[in-house]
Amino acid sequence: MPVPALTSAAASSDAATAAAAASNLDSPPVTTTGHAADAASELDPGLYIVSTPIGNLEDITLRALRVLRTASLVLAEDTRHTAKLFSRYDIHTRLSSFHQHNERHKQALVLRQLQQGAAIALVCDAGTPGINDPGTALVAAAVAAGLNVIPVPGASAVLAAVVASGLPTDQFLFCGFTAPKSGARQKQLASLAAQEATLAFYVSPHSLLAALEDAAQVLGGNRQCCLARELTKRHEEFWRGSLGDALLEFRQRGPRGEFVLLIAGGSAGGDGGETPLSEEQIVGALREAVAAGESPSSAAKSVAKQLGQNRKLCYALSLGLQQQQGSTTDDG
Amino acid sequence: MPVPALTSAAASSDAATAAAAASNLDSPPVTTTGHAADAASELDPGLYIVSTPIGNLEDITLRALRVLRTASLVLAEDTRHTAKLFSRYDIHTRLSSFHQHNERHKQALVLRQLQQGAAIALVCDAGTPGINDPGTALVAAAVAAGLNVIPVPGASAVLAAVVASGLPTDQFLFCGFTAPKSGARQKQLASLAAQEATLAFYVSPHSLLAALEDAAQVLGGNRQCCLARELTKRHEEFWRGSLGDALLEFRQRGPRGEFVLLIAGGSAGGDGGETPLSEEQIVGALREAVAAGESPSSAAKSVAKQLGQNRKLCYALSLGLQQQQGSTTDDG
Repeated sequence: MPVPALTSAAASSDAATAAAAASNLDSPPVTTTGHAADAASELDPGLYIVSTPIGNLEDITLRALRVLRTASLVLAEDTRHTAKLFSRYDIHTRLSSFHQHNERHKQALVLRQLQQGAAIALVCDAGTPGINDPGTALVAAAVAAGLNVIPVPGASAVLAAVVASGLPTDQFLFCGFTAPKSGARQKQLASLAAQEATLAFYVSPHSLLAALEDAAQVLGGNRQCCLARELTKRHEEFWRGSLGDALLEFRQRGPRGEFVLLIAGGSAGGDGGETPLSEEQIVGALREAVAAGESPSSAAKSVAKQLGQNRKLCYALSLGLQQQQGSTTDDG
Repeated sequence: MPVPALTSAAASSDAATAAAAASNLDSPPVTTTGHAADAASELDPGLYIVSTPIGNLEDITLRALRVLRTASLVLAEDTRHTAKLFSRYDIHTRLSSFHQHNERHKQALVLRQLQQGAAIALVCDAGTPGINDPGTALVAAAVAAGLNVIPVPGASAVLAAVVASGLPTDQFLFCGFTAPKSGARQKQLASLAAQEATLAFYVSPHSLLAALEDAAQVLGGNRQCCLARELTKRHEEFWRGSLGDALLEFRQRGPRGEFVLLIAGGSAGGDGGETPLSEEQIVGALREAVAAGESPSSAAKSVAKQLGQNRKLCYALSLGLQQQQGSTTDDG
């Protein structure tokens, strides 16, 4: 769709009509009389950035449901997708599409409505809008126009993956999707090689193997990673191991679904400047120390110090190891 | 509290008793008979990382409520804090404290229970656990022990602040709390000066002014920032402007509440390597271009190109500007 010329001439009712006409409304038409008008008065005017589920439809907050019910309009990336959520929760607010093909045109209409006091909700297909979706530019424009922007926090794939990864979470760098072409991707990864923070990428299934190949090549096959897939769904999986092993594993089974790829940070400023070892290597060192007579906590301390590894990780692994041994031997 | 020696001798019932004894339970005692046992059978065994509200108690997902209701035990950073949430939603699951003073000891008990098939929920005082809270080490230990770790996504202060900031969101680096001492903080900021991603820090009110001073000194007073406070609450505020202006503003009014400080990334690889201008400067350039006869979209294009600024931002600002003018002049 060509980008229409921007005009500021559309009056409010025109804007509303245009927005309605532009929406690919799949849900049934609004049947409650004056629902939107009544409801809008309950919400302060502004653009509500509403997080929606990333797979499991239960992952929606009570406030998100209320805002979606009472907003005068909900802007969705794919209205058919959001209509399913609406149907599940019996929401009948007017849905209008807001995607990369109409965003420039739609933005002007939406800003005008916001200026006139509307409460408009923005959602994306999954998770928190305003990151890697067409709504990002709308939020920036609303901010630039001095309008009220209200986040309604909720599910997000990147954060769900980060906290369950087992990798360090004190710092993480969200990098968006991996670059689509190998040259650009290798450059992107090379620029991140010394980054200490855990790296988080979105990866589509068709580029997973190529992305893992590039990552193993640029960052080294021993770098630890976690691949999260089917997040919040029945077959949710966290695959954890080295980049090299990840490549072997997913080459064999074939990647399915969207992935969040987390990669352990580099060690530019690590304890003593040592290269971080893999969890297996640390566990090996811990086993040796314990076999040599050290207590688990002293083993953790000495491994952390002598091998220059993260102390918290060593303690955690030592404890995990101890528990594992406890469960395979007798309980007494 | 001294760290007790780790032992793997506690049998399951001992562990449960110890956990119960250690909990500072503020909510009423469990009155439903066998509730925990019945309920636990509804959840798969594992450690549930459950996000809870960051201010507005409505910001909790339906799944989080179900998991908190049906888990056999909920580990909380401050049980008195979590008891308020439980009271609001009529949740009676056993609450037990898990904080930095007892984490080492508690961890062993919890891992043992998980190994025996318990479904245990982990929450922190606000938002998503596993980041900047005592639960992080527990999650790492559970992962290392090969146990099931299930994220239940929901509110998070960092993400809420990032998406509503108006700053670029395609990449962001979560840095945790700013370093407490000025020397370390300046070093931390200097290491991030060339970072292209938007930077996100947690800042406590008593260190906000010092942190802004250091940031303005190390990154330059013109660097754009956004200060988010009272997130999701009645007096939610996003203050946006340069680091220098932020310092003046908050010196004057005195900082209150916890802050998320977002700082625009550096321009290591920006368009043409130019220094990013402030939004005001870009808007000024846009005004000039329009006054010189350019259309708003052509003004955005030329400002982006000639001044080496982010193109999407220029378009958004141009549109915002245009809307602003439209609303102050006549609608016709």
